[in-house]
Amino acid sequence: MNEVEPATTRWKVIVEYHGAGFAGWQVQPDARTVQGELEAAVERVVGHRVQLSASGRTDAGVHALGQVVSFVTTARRSARAIRDGLTACLPPDIACVRAEEVPLSFDPRRWTRQKLYRYTWLARRSRSPMWADRAWHVRDTLDVAAMHAAAQHMVGQHDFTSFRAEGCGADHAVRTVESASVRWRAGFVELDVSGNGFLRHMVRIAAGTLWEVGRGAQPVGWVAEVIEAKRREAAGRTAPAHGLTLVSVSYGDAPPAHMS
Amino acid sequence: MNEVEPATTRWKVIVEYHGAGFAGWQVQPDARTVQGELEAAVERVVGHRVQLSASGRTDAGVHALGQVVSFVTTARRSARAIRDGLTACLPPDIACVRAEEVPLSFDPRRWTRQKLYRYTWLARRSRSPMWADRAWHVRDTLDVAAMHAAAQHMVGQHDFTSFRAEGCGADHAVRTVESASVRWRAGFVELDVSGNGFLRHMVRIAAGTLWEVGRGAQPVGWVAEVIEAKRREAAGRTAPAHGLTLVSVSYGDAPPAHMS
Repeated sequence: MNEVEPATTRWKVIVEYHGAGFAGWQVQPDARTVQGELEAAVERVVGHRVQLSASGRTDAGVHALGQVVSFVTTARRSARAIRDGLTACLPPDIACVRAEEVPLSFDPRRWTRQKLYRYTWLARRSRSPMWADRAWHVRDTLDVAAMHAAAQHMVGQHDFTSFRAEGCGADHAVRTVESASVRWRAGFVELDVSGNGFLRHMVRIAAGTLWEVGRGAQPVGWVAEVIEAKRREAAGRTAPAHGLTLVSVSYGDAPPAHMS
Repeated sequence: MNEVEPATTRWKVIVEYHGAGFAGWQVQPDARTVQGELEAAVERVVGHRVQLSASGRTDAGVHALGQVVSFVTTARRSARAIRDGLTACLPPDIACVRAEEVPLSFDPRRWTRQKLYRYTWLARRSRSPMWADRAWHVRDTLDVAAMHAAAQHMVGQHDFTSFRAEGCGADHAVRTVESASVRWRAGFVELDVSGNGFLRHMVRIAAGTLWEVGRGAQPVGWVAEVIEAKRREAAGRTAPAHGLTLVSVSYGDAPPAHMS
């Protein structure tokens, strides 16, 4: 008796979520997580249990415009049916914005070429009802040029031990930041930072550190000393999660060279 | 017996609110309103009952970055104490962003020189968890150049009967639109419209009408016909309240000439 193996398809889906209602990405007992909600929706759409993989975890409260998630299914579905079916099954604070078939070997974490995170400050006296859920409200006058100059010390390959949260599971703290910029945009101060991988809380600790420079409590060159110190206590505070957004994750047509 | 009248001060305060939690501006029985919350906060700060006046009402669900509100008090307070005191007493979805003393004769509605409203669309297939509370999600491809051209028919002095909701209390429907523009901004389509006064639902009906042009259901010139018709049924639907923001209200140093 010959049984034909059902054909399998691997999907890459781009997911947007508002972080406020989630205990982060990863499934945990008795907590609402992005992974948990998304797994339930995928299982309704494809009709069987699935294992989801993501480009990386996001902390509780962190937003995503372009988290990348992947799964394998034996169900035959169009890209449109995956995207619209998932969005219809998901709660209001998550949506699938795109779906595409990818090679079975695709791994959204290991194939990552570049991730872009954005950290947003609102610097004014009064809190903002419209932006309280998505910007860190600080009452300081921020020196954005100094913050930008300080951020350049982070660009390149460094040991980011000072920017690594306790409990970070990475083997080592060496990471490459490809670019970092701080600028005014529409009344907000934004830090955009890109690289091929980040440590736990790395961008939030960078934001807390650049804030010390922005408010004039530390000079621009201090960030180089913070990196050099390789101690978490040398850096600034961990900036609040709700100011952080995972904007996008980019991939080439094949795994990065160091993977092959 | 001579009693000295206590000195009175008139304040102009700029108020930001997220409209989702309010049944609009105006106090109503058994409803949470911006005016109601603000009155309670002002009374706590100045220690006596006050009468608030605003540049105009906003509908249930409409947001404001720069609503202008005024009141008179016998309490002596600094501008900073008014601003920070109000913000401290207000719930998370309202804040006072600025306070200044103005002449006792100031009237935030009658002295208005220009109001700026913004209507925001998100045109894409999937709904957006991050922007669901502040943009009208449409699945059409919008022709923004056609919408902008159509909006120019509204500029100038017209009888806007077609853009007036049932129950609008204004004496007549003649209003002057100073400028109207539709453009892409950061992935959204935005209508900015300014004038010295608007009818009830006027901007939302304009947005619903321009949407018909944007999605190709009506030609650019149709907006001129809609104005000419002077019938509400000639225009498009009333666009959802949550896409609308009262951005700012501007005043000169004295009442407009037609008031003196």
